[in-house]
Amino acid sequence: MSDPILADAKTRPVVRLRPKAEARAIRHGFPWVYADELVTDRRTQALAPGTIATLEDAERRPLATVTVNPRSKIIARVLDRDAEAEIDRGWIAARLARALELRERLFEAPFYRLVHAEADGLPGVIIDRFGAVAVVQPNAAWAEAMIGEIAAALIDVTGVETVIKNGSGRARGLEGLPEETLVLQGQIEAPVPVSMNGATYMADVMGGQKTGLFYDQRPNHAFAARLAKGARVLDVFSHVGGFALACLAGGAEHALAVDASTAALDLATKGADAMGQGARFATRQGDAFATLEALGAEGAQFDLVICDPPAFAPAKPALEAGLRAYERVARLAAPLVAPGGYIVLCSCSHAADLTQFRNASARGLGRGGRRAQLLHTGFAGADHPMLPQLAESGYLKSLFFRLD
Amino acid sequence: MSDPILADAKTRPVVRLRPKAEARAIRHGFPWVYADELVTDRRTQALAPGTIATLEDAERRPLATVTVNPRSKIIARVLDRDAEAEIDRGWIAARLARALELRERLFEAPFYRLVHAEADGLPGVIIDRFGAVAVVQPNAAWAEAMIGEIAAALIDVTGVETVIKNGSGRARGLEGLPEETLVLQGQIEAPVPVSMNGATYMADVMGGQKTGLFYDQRPNHAFAARLAKGARVLDVFSHVGGFALACLAGGAEHALAVDASTAALDLATKGADAMGQGARFATRQGDAFATLEALGAEGAQFDLVICDPPAFAPAKPALEAGLRAYERVARLAAPLVAPGGYIVLCSCSHAADLTQFRNASARGLGRGGRRAQLLHTGFAGADHPMLPQLAESGYLKSLFFRLD
Repeated sequence: MSDPILADAKTRPVVRLRPKAEARAIRHGFPWVYADELVTDRRTQALAPGTIATLEDAERRPLATVTVNPRSKIIARVLDRDAEAEIDRGWIAARLARALELRERLFEAPFYRLVHAEADGLPGVIIDRFGAVAVVQPNAAWAEAMIGEIAAALIDVTGVETVIKNGSGRARGLEGLPEETLVLQGQIEAPVPVSMNGATYMADVMGGQKTGLFYDQRPNHAFAARLAKGARVLDVFSHVGGFALACLAGGAEHALAVDASTAALDLATKGADAMGQGARFATRQGDAFATLEALGAEGAQFDLVICDPPAFAPAKPALEAGLRAYERVARLAAPLVAPGGYIVLCSCSHAADLTQFRNASARGLGRGGRRAQLLHTGFAGADHPMLPQLAESGYLKSLFFRLD
Repeated sequence: MSDPILADAKTRPVVRLRPKAEARAIRHGFPWVYADELVTDRRTQALAPGTIATLEDAERRPLATVTVNPRSKIIARVLDRDAEAEIDRGWIAARLARALELRERLFEAPFYRLVHAEADGLPGVIIDRFGAVAVVQPNAAWAEAMIGEIAAALIDVTGVETVIKNGSGRARGLEGLPEETLVLQGQIEAPVPVSMNGATYMADVMGGQKTGLFYDQRPNHAFAARLAKGARVLDVFSHVGGFALACLAGGAEHALAVDASTAALDLATKGADAMGQGARFATRQGDAFATLEALGAEGAQFDLVICDPPAFAPAKPALEAGLRAYERVARLAAPLVAPGGYIVLCSCSHAADLTQFRNASARGLGRGGRRAQLLHTGFAGADHPMLPQLAESGYLKSLFFRLD
């Protein structure tokens, strides 16, 4: 893009909070300004999406360096609490270095979410790393405009050889950005093998859901694997086999992966084969609800059942229907668990909080005729940090139950 | 005790729910009947604390086998959903075997909480296992009365050689039980060395807080250890060194433990010595708040600070003061964290829920002059299961932050 979004700190545009808007929230680290909090005169409305600007409070005191998108409900995002920060490749590199430091402390191998947007100081930017390959999701207009600088800084800081831009997903739509996935640097032979929790996953970094692999469930995969020794495992909504392959690595006797996507199941099978566990692994393509019902009719029994569905309640209007869907998953899956066995129920819905999801799950298990102990509640891994101010919206919850 | 609390299922007392009480809750697995839900005629009021009885609904349909304590607000606790269950040594052994099966799946060595009360089907009973030693807390009158059967079943099922009864703590007071700690079976040479997360802890099973060691923080100790490599660690409210010694095992450069109890610090030092890490370990006896202030005045800096205080808000009336105390801990500890370092803030308060505790912590960090990323939220380990119906009261929360 050639929009004039960059200008040095002295000459760039200034945007201003309305008199009653909360400057304190920004001073205390809240990262966003909503459209109704900003003076949106004609000049501000004419700014190109992504424009870097200086944010001032209503008394014209500088507050922060922000990026402005007049088309978005989140009209400004804080880039730096220094109102005179220059947002350039060096600035991006410093943010990346800080993000890398945490991941290198947490993980032995370079497979992780490197940048988790606002919480890592890069609003709207997701970067997943698969060894020498990085996949960037520029989900905000400033990052779309600066994708070249981001890719260059990424190579400098991490030493990755291939950088892919993944321009799919809901968030870009809200920012008014087009769909587009392409190789920015280097080359790619997909799928990329990823080692995690002793399992091997095949990540389709060019065509997959999100960035090709869900790193967020890593600690929950690991916990399931601890329950899996000698177990018959059912992994429903398996995608590329996240839980199933971790359970095989944990000593499961057998794992059956169910998913609607043939492509995902093929990748799961490739992963099991790469682990030398192909003989213990099977897939069943189909609608998850229909398959749960069919397995119930067949009288199938498993020692460990995992249900990790897509977001049934991504936003508030879908909450009630979403909670009913989670309850139904639990109800249909409960009879498939052998006596004394385990069930893992997951939600990646922003709108359903932990209490609501836990209650829906417990209700479903009860209606499925089972009593439960709740053993463990897991969230997204630590390579998915949150700002404390936004922690209420922690989307991923995994509940581990033992049934009677 | 010689109270006539046991009688076979055909001849034992019957207690009955009031007409408007919720039989459905019991049918759905809720484990308690409150005093105002039960018909408390003179016969029921005269029952010896702990008496085993059959619970009926208002229409005289049998609901469950319960234990009754007319002196307690929780007047009846469900022992078995079979209203004709015989509560004897065999029944206790079956519950213990089920509890053991889970722990043996989760842990490689026999060091864990074996029984976590209601969620393990033994209301009011806590049993911690330290290898060949088990410590039983009979916190309900039925368990106090049946302590002999519990000890015998415990030896049968687990093969432990020593059984200690620990009759201390708040819960017993609510049940009207006296304080008393004694060896029921075998003998004991305290302290008992416990291996956990690569560290060695010294558990004072006869005189310690709770049962001598806090197993509940095990996964949070492990997460802290992942952040500890090369770090200068400060462990405030350290007890016997739970976080500090795990961090040394994780490669910390140095750890300083602060606690008010000289006895606890001596055990921590013994643990560090047993690990061969004595040279990297130091203690400082004193009030935690005063010591945090003193360290601040000295300009001390640490790469990882952990604050795991006692419950500041054990019950609702203490909530506001408790939250202020948590905020104060965070505020005083924040300046001690080096740039880019980590802080772990814990609460074991039933009354403060996750959101309240997180907000108090974030506020304290902010007032201490720091911005934070929230990396991880941990609860009690899986050897502390919960009934889903009581999960709201999950007491232990550990928040892992990285500071700017």
